[in-house]
Amino acid sequence: MTNQETEKIKVFALGGVGEVGKNMYVIETGSQIFIVDAGLMIPEDEMLGIDMVIPDISYLMDHKTKVKAIFITHGHEEHMGALTYILRKLEVPVFGTKFTLALLKEELEQANVRKSDLKEVDRTTILTFDEVKVSFFRTTHSIPDSVGIVFHTDQGAIVHSGDYKFDPTSIGVFSTDIDIMAQVGSEGVLCLLSDSMNAEKPGHTGSENQVGQEFSDAFYNIEGRIIVVTYATNIQRLQSIFLAANESGRKVGIVGQKMTRVVEIAKGLGYLTIPEDTLVSYNEIMQLPSNQVVMITTNHQGEPVAALSKIAKGTHKQIQVSQGDTFIFAAASSPGTEISISKSVDLLYRAGANVISGGSKRFHASGHGSQEDIKMMLHLMKPKYIVPIHGEYRMQKAHAKIAKSMGMQDDQIIILEKGEVIEFTDQKASYGSKVYAGNVLIDGLGIGDVGNIVLRDRRLLSQDGILVIVVTLSKDRNEIVAGPEIISRGFVYVRESEQLLIDATGIVKDILDKCIKDQIMDWSTLKLSIRDSLNQYLYEKTKRRPMILPIIMEA
Amino acid sequence: MTNQETEKIKVFALGGVGEVGKNMYVIETGSQIFIVDAGLMIPEDEMLGIDMVIPDISYLMDHKTKVKAIFITHGHEEHMGALTYILRKLEVPVFGTKFTLALLKEELEQANVRKSDLKEVDRTTILTFDEVKVSFFRTTHSIPDSVGIVFHTDQGAIVHSGDYKFDPTSIGVFSTDIDIMAQVGSEGVLCLLSDSMNAEKPGHTGSENQVGQEFSDAFYNIEGRIIVVTYATNIQRLQSIFLAANESGRKVGIVGQKMTRVVEIAKGLGYLTIPEDTLVSYNEIMQLPSNQVVMITTNHQGEPVAALSKIAKGTHKQIQVSQGDTFIFAAASSPGTEISISKSVDLLYRAGANVISGGSKRFHASGHGSQEDIKMMLHLMKPKYIVPIHGEYRMQKAHAKIAKSMGMQDDQIIILEKGEVIEFTDQKASYGSKVYAGNVLIDGLGIGDVGNIVLRDRRLLSQDGILVIVVTLSKDRNEIVAGPEIISRGFVYVRESEQLLIDATGIVKDILDKCIKDQIMDWSTLKLSIRDSLNQYLYEKTKRRPMILPIIMEA
Repeated sequence: MTNQETEKIKVFALGGVGEVGKNMYVIETGSQIFIVDAGLMIPEDEMLGIDMVIPDISYLMDHKTKVKAIFITHGHEEHMGALTYILRKLEVPVFGTKFTLALLKEELEQANVRKSDLKEVDRTTILTFDEVKVSFFRTTHSIPDSVGIVFHTDQGAIVHSGDYKFDPTSIGVFSTDIDIMAQVGSEGVLCLLSDSMNAEKPGHTGSENQVGQEFSDAFYNIEGRIIVVTYATNIQRLQSIFLAANESGRKVGIVGQKMTRVVEIAKGLGYLTIPEDTLVSYNEIMQLPSNQVVMITTNHQGEPVAALSKIAKGTHKQIQVSQGDTFIFAAASSPGTEISISKSVDLLYRAGANVISGGSKRFHASGHGSQEDIKMMLHLMKPKYIVPIHGEYRMQKAHAKIAKSMGMQDDQIIILEKGEVIEFTDQKASYGSKVYAGNVLIDGLGIGDVGNIVLRDRRLLSQDGILVIVVTLSKDRNEIVAGPEIISRGFVYVRESEQLLIDATGIVKDILDKCIKDQIMDWSTLKLSIRDSLNQYLYEKTKRRPMILPIIMEA
Repeated sequence: MTNQETEKIKVFALGGVGEVGKNMYVIETGSQIFIVDAGLMIPEDEMLGIDMVIPDISYLMDHKTKVKAIFITHGHEEHMGALTYILRKLEVPVFGTKFTLALLKEELEQANVRKSDLKEVDRTTILTFDEVKVSFFRTTHSIPDSVGIVFHTDQGAIVHSGDYKFDPTSIGVFSTDIDIMAQVGSEGVLCLLSDSMNAEKPGHTGSENQVGQEFSDAFYNIEGRIIVVTYATNIQRLQSIFLAANESGRKVGIVGQKMTRVVEIAKGLGYLTIPEDTLVSYNEIMQLPSNQVVMITTNHQGEPVAALSKIAKGTHKQIQVSQGDTFIFAAASSPGTEISISKSVDLLYRAGANVISGGSKRFHASGHGSQEDIKMMLHLMKPKYIVPIHGEYRMQKAHAKIAKSMGMQDDQIIILEKGEVIEFTDQKASYGSKVYAGNVLIDGLGIGDVGNIVLRDRRLLSQDGILVIVVTLSKDRNEIVAGPEIISRGFVYVRESEQLLIDATGIVKDILDKCIKDQIMDWSTLKLSIRDSLNQYLYEKTKRRPMILPIIMEA
């Protein structure tokens, strides 16, 4: 390794730019690699049957010995959900704050990951590695103990903002370390990697305390049972709900394992203060008169949309809808979830419940900073370079526009694609050679074994089903000894399409007879011919294109 | 038929309540049936492979001779898209306004429906049937020549509002016949069936003329090419775009067959006035300098979201994105389309274009009335009974709330479920016995042949694929003569899972050997045993549950 190379600092993303989820950013010095976040992504609609998506870490595996640490900014799945997979392959310490590690520990246990080296940090921690020092600052986000991370290098600080918004009314454990941030900024920031999720939204992001006030008002006015569906880890919101319940003479029952555990953890760590006698068991809450009841719930992944749907469909084990219930859906309706939410709300109305949904924005505030918050971050950090991270391309574009409005020049603003590398030398940025960055799809126990071929097949199967044609030929291939038989699934309702399938079988029979007569022994030719003829025939008759699977056996 | 029965008037929906799309309402007197609208619905996500959904008209087929007319309120697919199917089964005249029938005629021709009896009506038409007279009033909607329909019965008028909003600035062919509506109201309305789509939205729905002003401003300020993606049939919007183009010294090129035809029709009928020399051919527009170009497009179904996606993905034949293009997405982002829109916008940005999307609401105004419009309709009609139609349940609920706020009593407000019947006798409403109302799924040429079993199979196939096991036994079932062979699709990547499939084949072989030894000749038992064992084995190994399809042949 030459001298020059050791001086270079590389920054790149293995996930989380140009997409929402599976955040993973990498800071690489000459001899060491540091990872910020290791998140998962909910699969897109076309990824049929896939459970989740994580970043491909081939690059990290190829440079295993250089990888010194994974820093987790906070405990959301898009930031740490890939660790249960990655820690099986990569033995490296994970640094995080108290609440983050408490959640992570649960997850690792549940996933049976036995070996892990978790190291707690806080806003006062300074970690010393060979070429960098690392420190932290707390941010206000929709989960407690969120941090930004500062890599102090000899070229200046490289700052990862974490997820943040500025909310001066969020105090105590929910507050922002604006003093540390200002200090970091004044010491000189070479590059700021900063959250772009709400860069398209003008103004300031709303405060969680306003949401709290809404709960207080609503609980005062509502008469029947109140069921709040929200995120498991938004402790600040849970705190508001507990206080509002107490004020209005109601008790709170937590429904569901995930939220129960999170509440226990938060209480244990002092992040949540529950007024005396306010939290009661499920059995107790079910005994109380409806005007004394608040239930809070989410699903096992802490995802409110799925929980709402389950309750609405009547398949929830613990919450049955009654006439006069009021559901408060305190969550964002993100693209892709509106239809599900809208159906759930419809079903709840039909069951005689009232629904106050997040659409009104009264019961939900985002955890990501809007344009004015982003400006505040730029103002505090005064970075030489800004890299808009976390969010789709147009959000990063919007972030870039904000930076320009703050006086930054085009060459100071770097929109990275996944795998693109910026190299800093003498405090100057330039593009380095790309690294491999891709997706790993997880389906059941399979990690990365479902690729494009399998997905293409699933897509095909989902549209028009499958038609299997089986035939057994004699060893000398001179005679059909069994079949041809056609079996279909997901194509047509067989009872009403008997003639179609009989005709199709006839077509196959003719092809086979002709091949035997002509002594065509090449099975791929035979299969192709069956596939083409059936394809054409079926499309003509039905305008559908099922997958056609000819199977020829030899007896 | 007794005397009393002939006096009853029934009102019910075969589609379009508690759902968006496939509108179909029925007014039935003693001897005659009148249908209002015959629309289609875009299939829901879980209806895999389905092209569209139409109302089940079994009830109408069972009472064929009573059916006297279908009235189409306007030319949107959710109101007339099922006619190409229904007119093949039901020979009945279709009444509609000039523009509606012009669009319908095209559709019927394209669908090869040769026999149809289309009868033009307008705001002055009075049709006389045995027991009712029918008249019409024009409404302002996002398509010209929209009408509401009045059934004059001896119990008073039954009014179907059609789709409407009130916009006093929409004049000429786009205006509302508020005078006729007031007249109808003062003569006595027994029952009003009224559009609920925007009943949850406070205030008045925005005017299309405001949208027009936005186009005017934007065209003045934008420098490069302008490409507007919008609905084919919103002629009022197209009119604004033509005027704005002309004002700003730009020419307009229409891209795509559907929109080209609609523009021709609208021009021919006098609903669209194109400034001289403003409309040019595709070839001409491609020659012009970019600051003189406006292109308007949509997809072949008049659906802007799909068109935008095609352009963004670079698969559109006539529109390639260039650096400096500005795309104006002048359409609603309805639930279920946001992800697609958001992806398209991202791709367009990456290609160097600017995008002004409908999210900002500047370039789109809904065609459906909000709460204040709905109040105006109630105020004009002063109905004895109100039936909120068109929209999901919670929108109908919101509509009911508005009616209450206007002084109507609970027993005057009727929220119908599909197939529920209201009967009017002596101007009093009561529930009658239900009629059958369901969905017919259309997949390719198949109408209604895809039912729950086929859909369930497609769903299963889409998640974890399929595993086919074939084996040929001897006639006496004492010997395996070929196989067992396992073929999978959409399950695992076969090359990386050879051992898994070999082991699975072994399991099947063992089961077969044991069955042969034990002389178990019942094939369903054998198949069940194979399915269960493989299911268990594969789930254990992969946590996936492919469809397992054992095929046993006899040689």
